[in-house]
Amino acid sequence: MAVTKLVLVRHGESQWNQENRFTGWYDVDLSDKGRTEAKAAGQLLKKEGFVFDFAYTSVLKRAIHTLWNVLDELDQAWLPVEKTWRLNERHYGALQGLDKAETAAKYGDDQVKQWRRGFAITPPELDRADERFPGHDPRYASLTDAQLPTTESLALTIERVIPYWNESILPRIKSGEKVIVAAHGNSLRALVKYLDNLSEDEILELNIPTGVPLVYEFDENFKPLKRYYLGDADEIAAKAAAVANQGKAK
Amino acid sequence: MAVTKLVLVRHGESQWNQENRFTGWYDVDLSDKGRTEAKAAGQLLKKEGFVFDFAYTSVLKRAIHTLWNVLDELDQAWLPVEKTWRLNERHYGALQGLDKAETAAKYGDDQVKQWRRGFAITPPELDRADERFPGHDPRYASLTDAQLPTTESLALTIERVIPYWNESILPRIKSGEKVIVAAHGNSLRALVKYLDNLSEDEILELNIPTGVPLVYEFDENFKPLKRYYLGDADEIAAKAAAVANQGKAK
Repeated sequence: MAVTKLVLVRHGESQWNQENRFTGWYDVDLSDKGRTEAKAAGQLLKKEGFVFDFAYTSVLKRAIHTLWNVLDELDQAWLPVEKTWRLNERHYGALQGLDKAETAAKYGDDQVKQWRRGFAITPPELDRADERFPGHDPRYASLTDAQLPTTESLALTIERVIPYWNESILPRIKSGEKVIVAAHGNSLRALVKYLDNLSEDEILELNIPTGVPLVYEFDENFKPLKRYYLGDADEIAAKAAAVANQGKAK
Repeated sequence: MAVTKLVLVRHGESQWNQENRFTGWYDVDLSDKGRTEAKAAGQLLKKEGFVFDFAYTSVLKRAIHTLWNVLDELDQAWLPVEKTWRLNERHYGALQGLDKAETAAKYGDDQVKQWRRGFAITPPELDRADERFPGHDPRYASLTDAQLPTTESLALTIERVIPYWNESILPRIKSGEKVIVAAHGNSLRALVKYLDNLSEDEILELNIPTGVPLVYEFDENFKPLKRYYLGDADEIAAKAAAVANQGKAK
C-alpha cells in the first residue's frame, strides 16, 4: 500500500513568545532559540531521510524564516515555495501586541483562556483605522474587504485555511509531490482538526510544540492513517505543556 | 512620463569565488563576505526607498541566499519568489570545480579568457555519466534532455535566459509590478546584452560587481532609458576590476 507523507512544522519560538505577548498577524521575527529550533527540525528531517518537492508557508517572517532554516539544513533552498496569508496565525484582534500575563490579570485567566482556546470566540475587534489593521499592509493588498480580518476565532481561522488545503495543498499531494508546510499554532490546529475530524473540545486541548516536525501519513485515498512527531517524546511533551501554560497570569 | 524600474543583483561573493574555482551550476554557498555584501545591497535599496512586488532568482543557493538577505533588509521576506534554472550561472562544463589559476597555468591565460569571456566558445563538455551532470540532480527533473547542459557559452546562456525574460519577467513588469532579480554574473550579462543591445565585444568587457544593485529604468514602451549602480562609484569600479582579474594565473 502506498503511503503518502505530509510534514507540518510550527515556527520556532518568536521574540514575542519570549515576551509572552499576543502576536497574531504582527510580523515578529524568530528569537535565537527559535532559529535553533528551526535548524534542529531541519536536521531531524534530514536524518530521517525526508526530501520535498514543494513547500508552503505564511506571509509572516517567523514561519518563513523557520522554513528557510529547515530547507537550508535539507540542502533544498532551491525548493519552490508558496507563501499565503491563509496559513497565517489566527488574527488576535485588538489583543495583538498586549502582554498575555497583563491581559490575564486584567480580564481573568478564564476570559483569556476563552479568547485563546475558545473555538468560536473572537477577541475584541480591531478598528479598521487602527494601524494594526491588515488592510494597511501591502502584503494583503490582494485580499477582499471580507477577507481582511479585524479579529478571528479558531473557527474563522479554519474557514480560511481549509479552502486553501483543498484547492492548493491537497491537489499537489495527490499529484505525488512531497509537501512541507511551515506555519503557526492555530493555522496548523485548524488543519489537524479538519484532517483528524477532532471535536471542538479535542482541538481545544491540542497543543502543537514549536519547531517539531509533525508527520501525517495518508492512505491511497488520502485519508489520514496516523500523525506523529519526529524526535524525543519527553522533550516534545514538555514543549507542548509550555505552550499550554503561556496564557496564564504570572 | 512614467518610469518603470527593475533591479538586478549579482550574488555576493561565494566560497568558491574566494577559492578562485570555476563554479557554474555547482551549488556552493555564499562566503561570510558574500552575506555581508548581500545585506549591504538590501540596506542600500532600503535607503533609496525601493519596495518590490515580486522577486526572481535561480535555483542556486548563492543567489537564493543573496535574495533572502536583501528581502530581510527590506522587511519583505513575505514577497512571492520564483526560482528558475533559467537564471542559473552559465554552466562551465568539465571545468566546474577546477581552480582558475591552475587552469590558466595549464591551458594559458588566453584560452581561459576565451572560455570565460568568449561569446560563443564553450568550455570542454561534461560527460553525462559525470556526477556533475545536472541530469542527476532532482531540482532539474523537469528539464528536457535538450535543456540539460553539458557546457555553455554566454551565447547559449542567452538562449535560455531571454525566453524567460520575455515570457515571465517582462509581462510582470508590464503589468505594473516592481521586480527584483537576484542572479549570477553571466545570466545577468545575458540580460544586459539583450536589454542594451550590446555587441559581443562590449559584453565581453562588461564586468558586473557582486552584491551591487543594478537599476534599469524603462520608458512607457519598456525600452531601457538607462542603467546605473546604486552606491559608491569608486567602490563599484574596484569590485568590477576584481571580477575581471579572477581568471588570470597567479
